[in-house]
Amino acid sequence: MKISIIGTGRVATHLALAFYKAGITIVEIFGRTPEKAQILAQKVNASPISNIAQMSQADIFICSVKDDALETLLQKSNFKNSLVVHTAGSLDMDILQNFSENIGVFYPLQTFSFEKEINWENTPLFIEANSDKNLKELTKLANKISKKVTVCSSENRRNIHISAVFVCNFANHMYAIGEKLMQDANLSFDMLLPLINETSKKVNTVSPKLAQTGPAVRYDRNVIDKHLAALSNEPNLQEIYQLLTENIHKFVTE
Amino acid sequence: MKISIIGTGRVATHLALAFYKAGITIVEIFGRTPEKAQILAQKVNASPISNIAQMSQADIFICSVKDDALETLLQKSNFKNSLVVHTAGSLDMDILQNFSENIGVFYPLQTFSFEKEINWENTPLFIEANSDKNLKELTKLANKISKKVTVCSSENRRNIHISAVFVCNFANHMYAIGEKLMQDANLSFDMLLPLINETSKKVNTVSPKLAQTGPAVRYDRNVIDKHLAALSNEPNLQEIYQLLTENIHKFVTE
Repeated sequence: MKISIIGTGRVATHLALAFYKAGITIVEIFGRTPEKAQILAQKVNASPISNIAQMSQADIFICSVKDDALETLLQKSNFKNSLVVHTAGSLDMDILQNFSENIGVFYPLQTFSFEKEINWENTPLFIEANSDKNLKELTKLANKISKKVTVCSSENRRNIHISAVFVCNFANHMYAIGEKLMQDANLSFDMLLPLINETSKKVNTVSPKLAQTGPAVRYDRNVIDKHLAALSNEPNLQEIYQLLTENIHKFVTE
Repeated sequence: MKISIIGTGRVATHLALAFYKAGITIVEIFGRTPEKAQILAQKVNASPISNIAQMSQADIFICSVKDDALETLLQKSNFKNSLVVHTAGSLDMDILQNFSENIGVFYPLQTFSFEKEINWENTPLFIEANSDKNLKELTKLANKISKKVTVCSSENRRNIHISAVFVCNFANHMYAIGEKLMQDANLSFDMLLPLINETSKKVNTVSPKLAQTGPAVRYDRNVIDKHLAALSNEPNLQEIYQLLTENIHKFVTE
């Protein structure tokens, strides 16, 4: 099984490294910026390429570029009906149907940073394809890097993506707000780490609905009003505090 | 050093167990509900008591009850100028000055559930007292259970508490929303756990501001609008999605 990767961003990079580590041949790495393509290609023993029309044959082309750049980029491609997949959470599979007869999706549910390695074995992969044959092929590929492979429709994938935005992107924003508030008080963010770690660890064994603690769940107006007053110079944070407090109260009383 | 504990809730319970484990003598456990006092007292070899006026002597009385119940409860107390402390994040120390000449605060920065043990050694404790002698006494007590003891003013303690609400209570609420959205789509919340764990693990080494990923930080209107449309039946979640997306965008462009 030979694959080629279109993209040099975080997801493309982590995927390329995972496939390479799993012994899969990577033919080419496409990147609009030749230097970026070269750096990644070198890491996975592939050829760098910066003209998508000239990509040579591979069994599977994996497109991992920004959602809104994908279609424009693929207009110039010539995949000759090889299997073409994208890795996006909220793009329908059908967006690919103008570019090949064999299409699919290969969506890893994870947060990727350049600085940090990923535990791929433990990372859920949601796959979709437009035929049994293509699905079989994608399943084979997915099983080589993860133990958590699930077939999933475009609609459900979007639902998973929205959930991921809340538990990952928005949870991280809560950390960023905590960091800002600690910095404003000349305190170290590191002091919050045992609490952050315990909070996430807990939901591995207890439902987050049951794990909820704090003034909002007790609806302790005394504390809530003190906190809102202390945030009076930060109207955005005050608004977030108010909205999330109301919603926690709503969730636990439902 | 002999201590007595006022309260039988989550913080009181975890503190009592930690002190007992550290070899500190616990004289009495006060609880308005005699059964609750009895259960906890039995676990830490103390006497249960349900009349606060009749509490016998201890070196330190630790009050761990709901913020708005504290003052009313202490009206009936008779601590004879023993050291009296509370464990609340957002109550000034001075609230105790009507009840003893020796007062202080002993605030653990952690989330407590009855079901789950705490790593006390790693839990930051923020202490405050109204004299050097009292501060020394509290420091001695705090050092017996934690390696992270910091002296902290009432104002800074409130700032820490607000930060904790964001990184713990509100982050957990993001998990609870993710759980609800997955359940609504007949998907298992457990699929989100590798992502949740990676997201929290990452901020142990990378600043959350730099660790931010997702459609909001890229300001990918295409994805954002799809997600907002998909949440049209959940106006509260839609509002939270919108507000947090705007704020992430604001944070990273500042």
